[in-house]
Amino acid sequence: MTTGVRRRMGVDERRQQLIGVALELFSSRSPDEVSIDEIAAAAGISRPLVYHYFPGKQSLYEAALRRAADELAERFLEPREGPLGARLLRVMGRFFDFVEDHGPGFSALMRGGPAAGSSTTNAMIDGVRQAAYEQILSHLGVEVPSARLELVVRTWVSLAEATALLWLDGKRVPRTELERQLVHDFAALAAVSAAYDEEVAGIVLRALEQEPPDGPFGELLIRLAALTTGTPTVPPQRQP
Amino acid sequence: MTTGVRRRMGVDERRQQLIGVALELFSSRSPDEVSIDEIAAAAGISRPLVYHYFPGKQSLYEAALRRAADELAERFLEPREGPLGARLLRVMGRFFDFVEDHGPGFSALMRGGPAAGSSTTNAMIDGVRQAAYEQILSHLGVEVPSARLELVVRTWVSLAEATALLWLDGKRVPRTELERQLVHDFAALAAVSAAYDEEVAGIVLRALEQEPPDGPFGELLIRLAALTTGTPTVPPQRQP
Repeated sequence: MTTGVRRRMGVDERRQQLIGVALELFSSRSPDEVSIDEIAAAAGISRPLVYHYFPGKQSLYEAALRRAADELAERFLEPREGPLGARLLRVMGRFFDFVEDHGPGFSALMRGGPAAGSSTTNAMIDGVRQAAYEQILSHLGVEVPSARLELVVRTWVSLAEATALLWLDGKRVPRTELERQLVHDFAALAAVSAAYDEEVAGIVLRALEQEPPDGPFGELLIRLAALTTGTPTVPPQRQP
Repeated sequence: MTTGVRRRMGVDERRQQLIGVALELFSSRSPDEVSIDEIAAAAGISRPLVYHYFPGKQSLYEAALRRAADELAERFLEPREGPLGARLLRVMGRFFDFVEDHGPGFSALMRGGPAAGSSTTNAMIDGVRQAAYEQILSHLGVEVPSARLELVVRTWVSLAEATALLWLDGKRVPRTELERQLVHDFAALAAVSAAYDEEVAGIVLRALEQEPPDGPFGELLIRLAALTTGTPTVPPQRQP
């Protein structure tokens, strides 16, 4: 018999190993399709031993989700330096890295399969959304947002989720395009809100002043101007 | 004993009555907080009799959701006449009517409480999203959308859901503003996509040609122009 301290370390390590094995399996198949037997086999231990560390599949699933959620929230962290557009574009790159790494697990979770949809998993998802929301506010330099600014930021977070889920379903648009598009979408939604709300207008104008012409926001404005004046980037097939 | 025909009619009517009673209760409280006893009391029948018509709360919940989903999908129907902006604005008005009428039930469903989150409820929600998506495509005059157009329309549907959910949580922004904002958001997301995709560009330009200057799209463009040139609608607090 070893000491109690050593034994407890072993339990934690085994739990971490099982979480890692589960996440690896969930990266290629939906959690609902992965059995405890498979997780046990991949970890090189017996099925009853898995149940020794996790009372059931749901608790292992939730522990795996906890680790994934923490990892995703960490990817939102970005130094407060340089233009906002470039910062957001870097975060989008890391977000899509995560989505790509965890594909089927991410889809199953967000679409609410049998394993998902519990109050625990919903609370974890909301925690990640909240982390994204708070990061964006802090980059905008806002502590107490107006209702309209809160709406812009939170609904854009939903848009990023929806975009990532649609991307996973067939990957018919290159992800780098979608990363850039989401940055543009943020600017577009903020601009719509700015047209009606003074606080948002102030934030948008301050942010735009720091954007270089060759950053993602500048690029969008140039392309939109080209679109409305009909330069060659736009097809000439206007209808009568 | 009455005839079998009459009796079967009675069963359908009773089921419809119970669905109506349940939806009424779900309009002021989350389905998880509403018991079968309360539904029985509100319908003026005994608890065992409710179970005669619905084997359990989940089946009554799903029947109620089925009716609500059909009703919502019907509200998306809009004649293909006049400018697109005005059509979408009318649909948004009916969507928010629905959201307001079904407040707590809508929140619980979309946030995935214990009663929600089953594969049946998820399929019904996806059915409503699909109905919204198809309606929009038909108004745009598109039968087979490009991946990018599909993305714009489907992600905007997510945005409308997220906006409605946030509105329900405190109603801090007048709903008429949000209805208009969602129409603008659609234009903004389409414009971002149009800047990079020829099919979307063609659709946006065709739609804009039919928009009156005093419609929701014209109003947005005027306000955005005012924003970037710094006329009085915008606060002058630019920072150094």
